[in-house]
This record gives sequence, C-alpha cells and structure tokens, in this order.
Amino acid sequence: MSVPRRVINFSPGPAKLPEKVLQQASKEMLNYDNTGLSVMEMSHRSAEFSKIMSTAEADLRDLLNIPDNYKVLFLQGGGSGQFAAIPLNLMNLKPARVADYKITGAWSSKAAKEAEKYGKVNLVLPETKKYTGIPCKSTWNFHPEASYVYYCDNETVHGVEYDHVPETNGVPLVCDMSSNFLSRPFDIKKYGVVIAGAQKNIGCAGVTVVIIREDLLGYTLPECPIIFDYKVQVGMNSLYNTPPTYSIYIMGLVLNWIKEEGGLEAMYERSLIKARAVYDLLDSSDGFYHCLVAPNARSRMNIPLRIGGPEGVPELEKKFIEETQKCGMISLKGHRSVGGIRISLYNAVTVEETLHLVEFMKEFMAVNRK
Amino acid sequence: MSVPRRVINFSPGPAKLPEKVLQQASKEMLNYDNTGLSVMEMSHRSAEFSKIMSTAEADLRDLLNIPDNYKVLFLQGGGSGQFAAIPLNLMNLKPARVADYKITGAWSSKAAKEAEKYGKVNLVLPETKKYTGIPCKSTWNFHPEASYVYYCDNETVHGVEYDHVPETNGVPLVCDMSSNFLSRPFDIKKYGVVIAGAQKNIGCAGVTVVIIREDLLGYTLPECPIIFDYKVQVGMNSLYNTPPTYSIYIMGLVLNWIKEEGGLEAMYERSLIKARAVYDLLDSSDGFYHCLVAPNARSRMNIPLRIGGPEGVPELEKKFIEETQKCGMISLKGHRSVGGIRISLYNAVTVEETLHLVEFMKEFMAVNRK
Repeated sequence: MSVPRRVINFSPGPAKLPEKVLQQASKEMLNYDNTGLSVMEMSHRSAEFSKIMSTAEADLRDLLNIPDNYKVLFLQGGGSGQFAAIPLNLMNLKPARVADYKITGAWSSKAAKEAEKYGKVNLVLPETKKYTGIPCKSTWNFHPEASYVYYCDNETVHGVEYDHVPETNGVPLVCDMSSNFLSRPFDIKKYGVVIAGAQKNIGCAGVTVVIIREDLLGYTLPECPIIFDYKVQVGMNSLYNTPPTYSIYIMGLVLNWIKEEGGLEAMYERSLIKARAVYDLLDSSDGFYHCLVAPNARSRMNIPLRIGGPEGVPELEKKFIEETQKCGMISLKGHRSVGGIRISLYNAVTVEETLHLVEFMKEFMAVNRK
Repeated sequence: MSVPRRVINFSPGPAKLPEKVLQQASKEMLNYDNTGLSVMEMSHRSAEFSKIMSTAEADLRDLLNIPDNYKVLFLQGGGSGQFAAIPLNLMNLKPARVADYKITGAWSSKAAKEAEKYGKVNLVLPETKKYTGIPCKSTWNFHPEASYVYYCDNETVHGVEYDHVPETNGVPLVCDMSSNFLSRPFDIKKYGVVIAGAQKNIGCAGVTVVIIREDLLGYTLPECPIIFDYKVQVGMNSLYNTPPTYSIYIMGLVLNWIKEEGGLEAMYERSLIKARAVYDLLDSSDGFYHCLVAPNARSRMNIPLRIGGPEGVPELEKKFIEETQKCGMISLKGHRSVGGIRISLYNAVTVEETLHLVEFMKEFMAVNRK
C-alpha cells in the first residue's frame, strides 16, 4: 500500500500519530493477527483482547519502570473525568477533606473547580489570570492537613511545564501528565497518582491512563460513580465495564513504537531538539515572535506565541495561519483564551517537520518584519 | 484490497461490525477524505471532525425521527457510566428524590444499585434471582412521587426484551437500549431519556448515545462529575471535553450503513427472521435445546439457551462450543452467571450467518441426541 500525502499536524490534541501505527491499524482492520476479526469486534473478555491489554500494560510498566505496588488502569472519560475521579477517590485520605491544588493554567484550574464539589480546595500558588510560569517557592502555601497535592505537569493551553517534581514531604502527589506523558523519563515512585489522556503523546481519544499506588486505594467517597472507583477498577483489571477497546489497541501500538524508537530517553532528547529549535528562533527574533512563558517553565510540548509583539498583531497572525495551511502545516492557531499561535510538538511530530516549520517562520519573519 | 477470511462472530459485545464499515475505515486510516490526516489525529474542534459529528447526529435524527426538543449527546463511559449519570441528572426532578426501577436482568439490576447512591430506588417488579421474563402488570408497584421510571429494553445477559413501551402516566420514562438500539423503530416521544452504548448494534466501544428531552435538563445534583452533566454537555454539543472521536466516526459509518440497508424497518425485519430461525429450532427440538425465556419476552438480540435440558449437560455444551469454534463460529459461550450458550444476533450479523449456525445446531442435535 502506498502512503498517501499527509499534512504536517501541529494539533494540540487529538494529535499526530506515528505513520507506522496508522499503517498497522489499517492493515489489521479486518483481520487482526489471523483471528478473522477486527480488534473493534472482539469481546473485551476474549483471550485475544486480553493479550492486547496485558501487552500494553507490560510495555507501559517497562517504559516507566513501574513497581508492583503501583496499579495501572485504562479508563474512559478523559482528563476531565479524572478531575472528578481524583477527589472522589482521594479527598477522604484525611478527615479534613482538603486538597492542595497548584494552579498554573487552564487545566489545573478546571481540576480544582471540579474538586470543590467533593471537599475543600487549598490554592497553593498566588491567584492569577495570566499563566506564564511557576511562581517561586517562597509564595507557596500548603495546607497542613491536605489529603494530596495536585499539579498539572504540562499546561496544554498556556504552555507551562514543570522542570522539577514538587516536593510534598510525604503528602501523596497527584499529577495530570496528559500532554507530556511519555515525552521524558520520570520516577513514578515520587507520585501517588498519575493520570494521562491518551490523545496527545500516546494514542487516540477515548482512553485515559491512571497509575495509582495501591495504599491509596479504598478511600472512595460513597457518591463516586462506580466506573470511577479506582479500587473497583483495580480489582477488575479495568474491566468493571467495557473498556474503550480500540483506543487501548492503538495506545498499545504507540507504546510499542516508543520502545522501538529508543524509549523515553529518545523521546526526551528529540523533544529538546524540537523545542530548542523553536524557542531559539523566538528568542533571536528581536521581538517579532513573542514567547509568552518564563524561560524556566517553557513547555517542550506546547509553545504559545504572539507575532509582532506581546499582544500580537491580528493581521500578521491571521496571515501566518493562512500561509502555514497553504504549505500543508495545520492546527497552529492558539487557544481562544490565549490567542495568537500555538505549536504543539508531541512525540509523533518529527524533528524534520519541526525544522520545516522553523524555516517557514524565518522566511515569514524576513518578509513581514517592518 | 482483498477481503481476508473472517470468522462468524456471535459476540454479545463488543460485537460484529459490517464489513463495509471496516473496509472504509481501513482505507481512510491515513488520509480521511483528502485531509491528509487520520480521523484519530483530528482536533475535535476542527471543521473536518465537526462535520463527521454533525453528520452522525443528523443520520441518527433521521433514522429515529427525533424532534428538535430532544437533544443528542455522544459521551464516554458506557452504559455503566450512565447508570450514575441518569440519577445524577434526574433524581432531583421531584423533591422526594425517588426513582422507579423495573429490574428484568443483570443490567437493570446494576443500574438500580448505582442509583441508590443518589436517591431512593423503588423496585416496581417483584424481586427475583431468575430473570426469565417480564412479570405481569398486576404485580407492578409504582411510586407516586417517582422522578422517573427506568427500564432496560433488552437484557444482554438474560435475553429478556420488552415487546411494548411501559406506560408511566406522564412520569419521564428512561430506557437503557444499549443492546437493541436501532434494531427496530421506536417512538422517541414516549421517552424522557434513552441511552445506548455503541458496541452492540451501532459501532465500537467508547461512545454512548444519550437522547434527552430538553425540559428534563437543569436538575443536576451538585455532586455530578461535570462530564456527566447533561445540561453542560448539551450546551457544548458533547464537546465539554474531548469526545471519543474515532468511536464517533465509526458509529457514523454504521449509521450510514443502516440507512443504506433500508433503515430501522429493514433492521427489524431482518432481526425477526434471524431470531425466529433460532427460536423455532429451540421450540421444535423436543427439549434438546432449552430456551430460558418466556415466549413474550424473548430477545431478538441475545438468545441464552441450555443443551440437554433446563440445567444443561456440561459435556454437551462444552462440545458445542468447541465444534462451533472449529467451524469458525465464535463467542457463543453463555454469560458466567447464566451458563450454557448465548447467541447474539446484532444488526451486523447476517441472515446467512444465522442460518449457517442453525444448520450446525440441527446436525449437532442429530448426532448428540440420546
């Protein structure tokens, strides 16, 4: 089968997938591994699908070196579903029913709002409407009775990424890694819970990875919908209800691709090359391209920027979007709450594709600078 | 592309899909409609995906003749997620916070158990552990202050299907149609809410259809996770969070296939031919095949049966499963709570495939009858 002409996809999510994964999915669509079935048609309790699911879990455990006392779930409902599931499962860890939330952008803000339904939320960082970095430690305000500390490792909308793992002095650390999951190695043992929607770095929409330390199970609030009850889902290996089987299969193909490409070290190295190429251009553009985020919190995955100055020049930004589209580069428009441009550089976006965009940006600057 | 040899799939779900749908999905995997993208890679807010989603909704509205005062949602979380979402959205319709549940099998039983978290549950039917039919009207016990009446139109595990729409005298009727949705026409105007997981008759796992009358919106309990808040999701056209985009695309292909095949009348007619072929054999087998369900509640979709008598003969049933598998017919094992055999005959299972199984069953009976 010949590969059709494909665009260069800088979408913030759902996002680009490795072509190899799509080719395999296409090839196996009517007959997976000589079963005479599509993966979509398999009972979730069949031997064939069980193998797909256990292989995906084994590959994930291998990539992250996950110890046995951490359980892995593949659930429905996305990050937004987990914004409720986390407090529903963990708010009760201590009697005060309060949780620490570090808000650094749109997604952690939404998570905190959802948590308020199930307990008290303590804001660790000073309140702000402009998310352009991570406030310094002297401003942090932890609650002494917090059940857990929550943060978002990479803010997809605002392009703010942590360059460190927050220290919590023994309080369980809960992290939304949806948009930078498996783009760099991390030590799972520093975490109580890590969640990640698949549709950025590891697959298509519909499945969310939850990794949870087993001693945190069993504190579920009575009002928790059973599909979000971590203890129930752990007991049933994510099969309390029908899981999103095809999305799990695609995720499995991507996990295999990551291993073949050299694992998380390779993903990390590649992400640094891609992100540096863009940030170097922004920083050397003499204000033509304006980076919105403080240097120590700049995301490797999502780069929001304005063209022509800190507030952006609308005609220039419109022209940029139109011309990139004509050149087969898509989904570069910034989030409506931030404006301007956003470049998303997830695992499947290649160095070559990124450099192609950077070259275009240089030419665009040369032509349009006043 | 040549079509590979495929098995005959009688799975209770995830279940068989039309080959035409799989072929199209395979063909378009790397390049949907000349976009240069897979559907999996599209932003859920892109023009391309918006069209896929609005076409699916339009086709569903067309098939069911859904009026404008009914809203259509495509959500994550399956039927089990909706078992919580329904009381979270509707229990508050009346101050007594009580709901009527008609339990006719495993699924309505689970739904009632989940509803108890959010209000009182009144059991309309006499309690039983053997679900073999629908108790007669004289035994029904409705609550005068019920917020809604809930029932499951087709019980996948027990093979019990309604042959009528329950009368509720103005109380909103809520129905789980997961396993017989779009297998026959029905009048949506008789319902307050209809839910259906896609993985039986209309697609693959990961997306659940919710159809809701708009006057029932706005009663959501404060503890409802926002992704399950019908009012929020209606206001955002199912896009409060990233929807299961690829599952919606596959569902759209199946809806189009149903229209091309002649719509719900054709699906209904075909389902009757298939189910009759099986039930006629059971009834004429002189007890060799034992049907478990009362004649007026026999499902067209799922036919549980025992071989050799009412309790089944284990060696015969084991032999039946082994021999069908050798003949390329799979997923015929009964649910562990019922035992024996279960034949699932969803929309994509053809009349020919069903008659092939019936022929096998006749031969099996001739050889193995004592």
